[in-house]
Formats: sequence, structure tokens, C-alpha cells
Amino acid sequence: MTLSIDDVSVQPRIAEPGEGISLEELALAARNHAMPLEALRYDVTPPGLHYVLNHYDIPYVDGDTWRLEIHGCVETPISLDLETLQDLPRHTVRVTMECAGNGRAYLSPRPVSQPWLTGAVGTSDWTGVRLADLLEDAGVTPEAVDLAFSGADHGVERGVEDDYRRGLSLSDATVPDVLVAYEMNGHPLPPQHGYPVRLVVPGWYGMAHVKWLCDIEVLDAPFHGFQNAVSYRLRTDPDQPGTPVTRIEPRALLVPPGFPDFMSRTRVVQVGEQVLEGRAWSGWGEVTRVEVTDDGTTWWDAEVEPSSSPHGWQRFTARWSARPGEHRLRVRAHDSSGRSQPMTPVWSRGGFANNAEDPLRVIVRD
Amino acid sequence: MTLSIDDVSVQPRIAEPGEGISLEELALAARNHAMPLEALRYDVTPPGLHYVLNHYDIPYVDGDTWRLEIHGCVETPISLDLETLQDLPRHTVRVTMECAGNGRAYLSPRPVSQPWLTGAVGTSDWTGVRLADLLEDAGVTPEAVDLAFSGADHGVERGVEDDYRRGLSLSDATVPDVLVAYEMNGHPLPPQHGYPVRLVVPGWYGMAHVKWLCDIEVLDAPFHGFQNAVSYRLRTDPDQPGTPVTRIEPRALLVPPGFPDFMSRTRVVQVGEQVLEGRAWSGWGEVTRVEVTDDGTTWWDAEVEPSSSPHGWQRFTARWSARPGEHRLRVRAHDSSGRSQPMTPVWSRGGFANNAEDPLRVIVRD
Repeated sequence: MTLSIDDVSVQPRIAEPGEGISLEELALAARNHAMPLEALRYDVTPPGLHYVLNHYDIPYVDGDTWRLEIHGCVETPISLDLETLQDLPRHTVRVTMECAGNGRAYLSPRPVSQPWLTGAVGTSDWTGVRLADLLEDAGVTPEAVDLAFSGADHGVERGVEDDYRRGLSLSDATVPDVLVAYEMNGHPLPPQHGYPVRLVVPGWYGMAHVKWLCDIEVLDAPFHGFQNAVSYRLRTDPDQPGTPVTRIEPRALLVPPGFPDFMSRTRVVQVGEQVLEGRAWSGWGEVTRVEVTDDGTTWWDAEVEPSSSPHGWQRFTARWSARPGEHRLRVRAHDSSGRSQPMTPVWSRGGFANNAEDPLRVIVRD
Repeated sequence: MTLSIDDVSVQPRIAEPGEGISLEELALAARNHAMPLEALRYDVTPPGLHYVLNHYDIPYVDGDTWRLEIHGCVETPISLDLETLQDLPRHTVRVTMECAGNGRAYLSPRPVSQPWLTGAVGTSDWTGVRLADLLEDAGVTPEAVDLAFSGADHGVERGVEDDYRRGLSLSDATVPDVLVAYEMNGHPLPPQHGYPVRLVVPGWYGMAHVKWLCDIEVLDAPFHGFQNAVSYRLRTDPDQPGTPVTRIEPRALLVPPGFPDFMSRTRVVQVGEQVLEGRAWSGWGEVTRVEVTDDGTTWWDAEVEPSSSPHGWQRFTARWSARPGEHRLRVRAHDSSGRSQPMTPVWSRGGFANNAEDPLRVIVRD
């Protein structure tokens, strides 16, 4: 019997009403992981706590033989080894990154894919070379429109076999803080974050930050690869072309106060005056306001601190008079572009960009 | 309304037949994480890829003010700060650690808890002070029986509010390689692995390796705390006292060959001669044999390499003639104590120590 890709690759589907998480979704949840929300304490997420989402396997890439090719609509194609890349001018940018699927498992009905709750986020200091500098060295020709970035990871998705590949317009790719990065928090990239080199596109959801980057093709036409044209689109019907998923929608999350129950993760808090703490971010601008409620009716403002970086999350604190009983703590962020977190999720077939605020169940005891 | 711990804490339950994974189980799967199986390539698991299982939140512990207290049945109680601990003789031990719940989500019916598949494992070089040396300094008195180790993490589980606390017999605690560890792979412990200090008990499942360790009490009677007397027990009925979960049962796992489908994780492999690779381990002795099959009927032996450490996993390789079609690759380990991986799971209410071999679906194409 001869088998083909169609025998291994499942088409996307929406879970039935009330259908629990499947073993396939669980397998993704076990290999990829969220940032536990107590790590919102740290401005820079400690090693191993930053969220991870990889479509295929983590490839084994040898840093000694790795090369980055830049070709296509350029005057001088470039082929760089790691040492040469690291000798170019270094830049470090603090970036909050979030998976476009964060919040997916709260959607109803649930798109069957990586079943994120709300923790698919993290902030790191990324160090590398400005992509704009590399492109200047290569000399991008006037017909250039898009860039296609390819990783060393290979797999199949909805019947399409490919290396992971994403396109970005020339104008989005050449803003100064887009990096070809080889360090995360001052250390070589861990394998799961793209060793030896990944793209970093501040403000964009994670799918744009191509890992294990080994090829950049400058194109004279829009890129129509799977991850841009098919996968990361906002649509409610599979026949719609949809709109591309791009920048990170605003979100605020609390460091869960008190202590948890192991299984339910319900929080136990002592009665009295509390100071709640959290982080908020948006890829569209600065977070200008964070609101808090414990009953869904009365909201009050948190104190929002400036970010330590133009692309990093912002700390906020809020006083809370914790009265005995059961509460649902909610926070919501507003940004300088006029965007706000919705109270209820905006549904899409891919389960992308669901930034609806998520209540935290808290029991206050005497 | 006054609420208590009983309002937040759920009692253990077994999933109904066919019941999918709940959002509560998913929340645990998102905060804790497995090692993606392709990381079985590495003898020492790279940062962030080692499995993580924490019962409560990751506590924030200040290394500058942290102290370890050793008291109870000792001649001289000890109180150490981190710097003093690090000035004592250092020892480094390479240890394969596995969660006692690894394999739980494959059980039928499924105990509702952290829903592990098979990746809750990892190997690290742990550096610290021998517990036996510390106990010798303290002078354990003749009536000592058990030691109780307490972490800084606090929570509630099945109605019991406590710091995470585990007991170990004096004889199990004083073998030379039991460490009070402050480094993981040459770096300070990351927060999720117990910063600043954790216990390392080579050969034992993860529940024994108490993180954020801050207190060791030497007891003149057996320890009856929740995590020993109630939680980590092998029993099929809640009314049985059960037997304690202790050392790691043998297991072999493959680096998944070929490349995956994103959603199903089915593997695609090119037809022809392949070399399969994996790691095998046991807390009861050396792995003496690993067998492989692709049809469940014909088994052949892998070549098992010696471990780089008495407590670390062993690499194995096996030739495989991949014929076109669909296969289920299975491996099973045997150890020097006479233990072997079973073909079918041994069920327990807590879902512990399920080391049944787990088939990997592979499509071989021309």
C-alpha cells in the first residue's frame, strides 16, 4: 500500500458543543507551553518560562555549519555564517511576544488546534543584527515587494508539506527594530526558540518571528505561502479569504493573587487590602489604561507604569479591598491606538487574536 | 458569606468513559510542560526543555534572604544562607528525572489530574552539597527515622492546605548522591526548577526532589504528610492505604523519526534503511535491553549504550528497514533489576508509574 501526505494530515475542524479537549490537542499542549501567570512578576521572563509554540519538531541545527542566505531581488546575494553575523553591529531589543492563538481554547465553539488558554506570552531581550542593515548590504532592487523567511523546520499541515515559511512586506521588514537575532537574554538561543538564529518582528504575533532562520528571499510579488495565505487569517467561514493576522491586540493579565488549589487553580486570598499586580501590552501602541473589577459591574483604574522598552509589556498595580466571599477578578487594557479588550471573544475559525478578558476565580476568606 | 478551603478544593475523580480533557486539566497541561521527544537527542536536556511539574505556583524566593533550616533529631541545628551552602564541598550528578504521573492521560479510565502523555522527563547536571554531609554536620541522633523536606510553595490540594512537603527515610536520604542542589547545568536554578535550592534524589520520581527547599526536619517517627500518606500512593480503590510511589520504572522512548503532521503528530518517513535513536532509563538499575517492533509481533534488539552517569538515561540505536505503509513503532526497556515495560498500562487511581510502551504512528512513503 502506498501512502501519501493526505493519509497523515488532518483538515481543520471545529469541536462539537461540549466536546472535551482531544488527545491530539493535548499532545500539542504538552510539547508547547504557556508562561505560568505568576511569571508576570518579571519584566524579563526567566529562561524556560517564556511561552513556546512550534508547528513541527524542533530541528537540530549545527551552529558551525549553519548559513543564512539572502537572495532574490538584491544586487548582491549574501551568504553568512554565524561568526560573520555576530561580528556585525549588535542591537538588543526587549520584546513582548504572544502567540496568535492565545485564548483559543476559551472560544465556543473551539477551533481544534493548539489549545491555548491565556498564558502564551513572554518578554525577552533579543540581540542580533538589524534586518535593515543586512538588506542594505545586499542592495534591495526597486521591484522588491515582500520578503519570504524560511526556517529549518519541516512538516505537513492540512495536507501541505513545507518548511515553516512566512512572508512580510518590505516596509514592515525594514523598520529599525526588526532583528535577525542570535541571543535571548544574553545567551545563545535555546533550541526551542530558534538556535542559532531567528527573526524578531516587534509588535507582531509569534508566527512572524521565524525560528531556525536560514533563508530570506526578496520577492517582486506578494508572498502567497501557506502560513500567510491560508493559515494565519481571520475568517469565520472557510470559504472567505479572510484578513491577515498581524499585530498583537491589547491584553492585560494579573499575577494571580494568593495561593491556588492544585486542580481547580481557584485562588485563596486573605480578607483585607491587597495590591494586585500584572502586565499589559499591545502591538498597536502604548497601553494607556488598565481597568479592574471584582464583580463585573464596578470598574476602577489600575496604575499603569511606562514600559522599559517601546516593544515590552507594562507593569500595572491596583488596590483591591478583598471582601469575604467569591469573586471574579477581571482586568482589561486600552491602548493609544484606541483598541480595547472586548468583554466577550471575537470568534474566528482559526481561533486567532482572542484577547477577551478572562476572569480569575478568587475565594476571599477571613 | 464565609467561604473556606472546601469551597475551592475539588476531590479527586476519574473521568467518565470517552470524556475529553477538561479545561482544568488543560490549565495544568499549559503551565506544566513535557520535554518534546526530539530532545531525546541530547544527553543533557537543554534549558527550558526539561519537563516541569509544580503543584502550586512558582514562589518568588529571594536568594539573598533565603535560609535552609535543619532541625529536629540533631545534635546541632543548622541554619545556612546560600553563600555558606555554596562554600561547602560541591558535587555534580547527572540525573534523569521523570514525573510519577507520566503516562497518566493514556490510562482508561483517566484519573483527572495533570494529563501527561509520555514526555514528563529530562536529564540535567545538578550541582550542590551532599545531604549526607549536611546531616553529618548536624549530628543526627539515634532516634531519627524519617526526614521531612519543605518547599516555599504553598497551596491546597483535596482540601488540605500546606506547603509542599515530602518525607524520605533516613537510609534513602543519606546515600551519597542525594544533593541539596543550587545549580542546574552549571547555572543557578531557574525559578520553575526550585531557585535557589532543591533536593535531588537520583532514581526517584520527581515528587521526591522538593523544590524551593527551605526546611529539613529530622523526625523520630515515620512522616505522614499528605504527599506521602495520601497523594503519591499506588491504589486502585480510594479506601486502600496503597503502596508508596518511589523509584522510576523502566521506560524507553524514541526520537520520533522523519517529520510530523502539525495536528496529528503522525510521522512521515522516507522508505529505506533508517537508524532509530532514543533514550531508556530506570530508577531500579541499568537498562540492559531495549526491543523494537514496527508491527507488534516481530521484535528486535536495539544497541544500548552505557550511561554517562549512574543515574542518567542511556542512548540506544536500532536499525529499521522502513517499508511503505503505515506502522506503529514501539520500544520497550528491560533493566538489571528484572523489571520490564508492560505492553498494557497498570492502572492506579492516581495514575502513577504508568510505563506501558506507547506506539508511534508512522507513515512510510516511497
